[in-house]
Amino acid sequence: MESKNSVRIIPLGGLGEIGKNITAFEYKDEIIIIDCGVSFPDEDMYGVDLVIPDITYLLHNAEKVKGIFLTHGHEDHIGSLPYILKQLNVPIYGTRLTLGMVENKLKEHDILSDCELHGVEAGDVVKLTNFNIEFIRVTHSIADSCAIAIHTPIGVILHTGDFKVDYTPIDGLTMDLERISSLGKQGVLLLMADSTNVERQGHTISEKTIGETLTRIFSNAEGRVIVATFASNIHRMQQIINASLKYGRKVAFSGRSMENISQVAIELGYLHMPEGQLISVDEISSYPNEQITIITTGSQGEPMSALARIAFATHRKIKIESKDLYIISASPIPGNGKLISKVINQLYKKGADVIYEDLEEVHASGHAYQEELKLIHTLVHPKFFMPVHGEYRHLKHHANLAKKLGMEGQNIFILETGEVLELSDKEAKISDRVPTGSVFVDGLGVGDVGNIVLRDRKHLAQDGMITIVVTIEGETYNIIADPDIITRGFIYAKESEALINESKEIVRKELQNCLDNKIIEWSVLKASMKRSLEKYLYEKTKRRPIVLPIIMEI
Amino acid sequence: MESKNSVRIIPLGGLGEIGKNITAFEYKDEIIIIDCGVSFPDEDMYGVDLVIPDITYLLHNAEKVKGIFLTHGHEDHIGSLPYILKQLNVPIYGTRLTLGMVENKLKEHDILSDCELHGVEAGDVVKLTNFNIEFIRVTHSIADSCAIAIHTPIGVILHTGDFKVDYTPIDGLTMDLERISSLGKQGVLLLMADSTNVERQGHTISEKTIGETLTRIFSNAEGRVIVATFASNIHRMQQIINASLKYGRKVAFSGRSMENISQVAIELGYLHMPEGQLISVDEISSYPNEQITIITTGSQGEPMSALARIAFATHRKIKIESKDLYIISASPIPGNGKLISKVINQLYKKGADVIYEDLEEVHASGHAYQEELKLIHTLVHPKFFMPVHGEYRHLKHHANLAKKLGMEGQNIFILETGEVLELSDKEAKISDRVPTGSVFVDGLGVGDVGNIVLRDRKHLAQDGMITIVVTIEGETYNIIADPDIITRGFIYAKESEALINESKEIVRKELQNCLDNKIIEWSVLKASMKRSLEKYLYEKTKRRPIVLPIIMEI
Repeated sequence: MESKNSVRIIPLGGLGEIGKNITAFEYKDEIIIIDCGVSFPDEDMYGVDLVIPDITYLLHNAEKVKGIFLTHGHEDHIGSLPYILKQLNVPIYGTRLTLGMVENKLKEHDILSDCELHGVEAGDVVKLTNFNIEFIRVTHSIADSCAIAIHTPIGVILHTGDFKVDYTPIDGLTMDLERISSLGKQGVLLLMADSTNVERQGHTISEKTIGETLTRIFSNAEGRVIVATFASNIHRMQQIINASLKYGRKVAFSGRSMENISQVAIELGYLHMPEGQLISVDEISSYPNEQITIITTGSQGEPMSALARIAFATHRKIKIESKDLYIISASPIPGNGKLISKVINQLYKKGADVIYEDLEEVHASGHAYQEELKLIHTLVHPKFFMPVHGEYRHLKHHANLAKKLGMEGQNIFILETGEVLELSDKEAKISDRVPTGSVFVDGLGVGDVGNIVLRDRKHLAQDGMITIVVTIEGETYNIIADPDIITRGFIYAKESEALINESKEIVRKELQNCLDNKIIEWSVLKASMKRSLEKYLYEKTKRRPIVLPIIMEI
Repeated sequence: MESKNSVRIIPLGGLGEIGKNITAFEYKDEIIIIDCGVSFPDEDMYGVDLVIPDITYLLHNAEKVKGIFLTHGHEDHIGSLPYILKQLNVPIYGTRLTLGMVENKLKEHDILSDCELHGVEAGDVVKLTNFNIEFIRVTHSIADSCAIAIHTPIGVILHTGDFKVDYTPIDGLTMDLERISSLGKQGVLLLMADSTNVERQGHTISEKTIGETLTRIFSNAEGRVIVATFASNIHRMQQIINASLKYGRKVAFSGRSMENISQVAIELGYLHMPEGQLISVDEISSYPNEQITIITTGSQGEPMSALARIAFATHRKIKIESKDLYIISASPIPGNGKLISKVINQLYKKGADVIYEDLEEVHASGHAYQEELKLIHTLVHPKFFMPVHGEYRHLKHHANLAKKLGMEGQNIFILETGEVLELSDKEAKISDRVPTGSVFVDGLGVGDVGNIVLRDRKHLAQDGMITIVVTIEGETYNIIADPDIITRGFIYAKESEALINESKEIVRKELQNCLDNKIIEWSVLKASMKRSLEKYLYEKTKRRPIVLPIIMEI
């Protein structure tokens, strides 16, 4: 393979995980990037707010990078932009709604005026020296979503972005299957396709079905209706608005992201409400309950969200009232089930009624099921295939699905983040690996929390800590005063006075013993104190708090 | 209501939660207890190993307590026994398999010889002064499960225990619907019934169906088959053994609880294997791979389980081999989905094949769905009903189901743990509340980890801690030497030297300032140091580590 005539495809996130999607495409002296998402921390990433991709490779090749092309406005596709643009300020291309959501983010980070945003429409082609980047309309759980076809000197690469095949989308804008089919006919070198729901048989239900269910539920509601859903799901919002309109209800938005995104969507013409239907949360008490709908954040049970605050009576403006009907119009993202359940239990306890996915069809997935994936594979029938957007199990099953449809296993490539797929018009191979990984955002810190800090947090979370301070006279090596002990998260000290006193005695003896034996190296003394105390505490409690010995020399 | 002629029903766990089931029944000077389970800690109960019920009420009435009656051998019904029996040693009644599992536990805690265990069979009645306790066979995901009918002077209370209606159970022992029906005919005063799956429509599938699926899967397996399931699911084990036998496979058990429980089940005659089929894990390499089945723990993805250790190559005896087929024959318990997914991803990465619930019907629930619940309500048609074994949402839905079947709302009682239902032959009401709650087990400590310790652990987990030590000369109030700072889980100190140095300076200044103003109260000085440092760190990092100031006086 002539590597000068090859395209290098470098996923820097989004493979082996559902989150932080970002892929670089490199040809000669040009690099383009598709998407720039965040992921949310696992439970064992204590205290981490967000996880963003490590873009060392892009920074080393900064002069080559020509732009970031966005498929749609979900967090796992745009959420890292504020952090990445601070390091690598390149033009951003996306559809209007996508850019509307990006602008919101960049404003919050106070960098909007420094950034270059280019609006495109589905069907548009952005021309660079070697790459022509074509946006192709798809249907998904957020409006204005696109697949991207990259026309390169060696052939076409089609990246589906996130998609489902919805034949009856709310905005009437169906997926551009015609264009996808026509690309397939001309020949697609490489297909990269969404693997999220490859384990699910059949076909997703249409978003429109949810509207029908909601309308039926609204028709029976006697008090307020409060619907929690994803703030980015404009089509869902529209259907809730439509059902509200039908039954004479005003609509208020609650929760920061819900308020922000609904405003953007209304301004840009993606969300339609007749004059006067929109009210603020402050106005809800001016109308009878049966004329009120509230659309709120918190569909994942997030403890600080508007819905959770309503449930646990800490919301300043919205209190639970009798005949309230709550609808959780979302699926639990893996790991959130318990949080949602807590909110549901609490709403029931307070006497409200609750409808959720286990009871009614109030959510539709935005990611293609098996039959939809088969359709795309059949239309595109690419030479090479790379499953994307999934944990390893999803990528593996997507590879199997492609094989069942007739592809040769040797033409299918399951990559890991950081691996490089080198692609010529004849062949493809994994040729290289670039540095990459996860960068943790915690408060204002980006990357300053690493594995050591996380390991300590985990340890602290399990068994707490105990600090022991001794003061030593620096010339005589006499121990001055009693050791002082402070614990946090280990044991309730007031109930464990004996244990604490004994601990002081153990440490004091150990230290004296060392000093008597002329051991005066601070680090050795500390290690001895630590070891003896750890041993004692484990025997007594079977716990291993972090022991921090401090020697003050005076 | 004559309260001397009433039965008091006191759930001390198991309501508003799925876990630690324990209910007391009190009549005059007699108390009996049904079940004595543990629950497992929520994610925010950092470092807690187990949660057991608070039995203060029983200890205050210890002389009245005549025995603990066990419905079946699952952890959430027997797991607290070793802890509770140490405080309140009363006779235990249960079927043979249940007691076999209890004995195992009591041996581990070295208290078996002090305990009084009475074996019963389904159909047996234990007679006390006021209560006759009748064991009635049910089907569930563990063999030898029973409902319990308590015959009291004021009427019959029927507690279903955990059950499903399996018409084709593996051991051929169907649920004793006849006895239940006959009790219903005679008149049941109060029904207490399992609410776990009340949100699911239809009827559970029979355990036998899983055997058919497993047999089909085994017929295609070319290498070893490794099945992870719940160690207590003897019927599942039997079906795996049967499928193995059919295809000429030896069976080895892996994982401590799997080894223990299979041994108990074989000894007691609940698990049947022909001579020579059982081998130890050490022997598996003596047979060709296609003649090996391994039944293992780890179906919930538990990081220390045998399956997880196999996947991540830390198992000492079992390594992944090509053509290995792994079957996860279980449903994820809410909260465990991510852990299981990690294991599945890893097995696929290592080239093994994996089958799990999303792909094949390899698990059946042990808890009745709606149609089964309707059957029991219809057969029993009790005067009063109390849904049990569920979060609030489940109890609420179970109450609604009973109403749909014709019960009056006023005869249905959703209790909270600790509330007392006072029951006469004519009426029932919630009359009282006894002290109860959760007691945390952490290492050797039972109850010494409380809310303060947990709050600190949570805080430490989020942002870590920083200890700052200053030494002050006690007579002159001079600060001696530089303040010393140690952090853990806050920030990687080597990368943040400037922040640490600045922190020392801030504290030093604040302290000097106080001392200059004649503030010499240690607690006030510490509070000032803490406050100034917290403020500085939050400004710089937007994090709030626990700040621990220590003043050493010499």
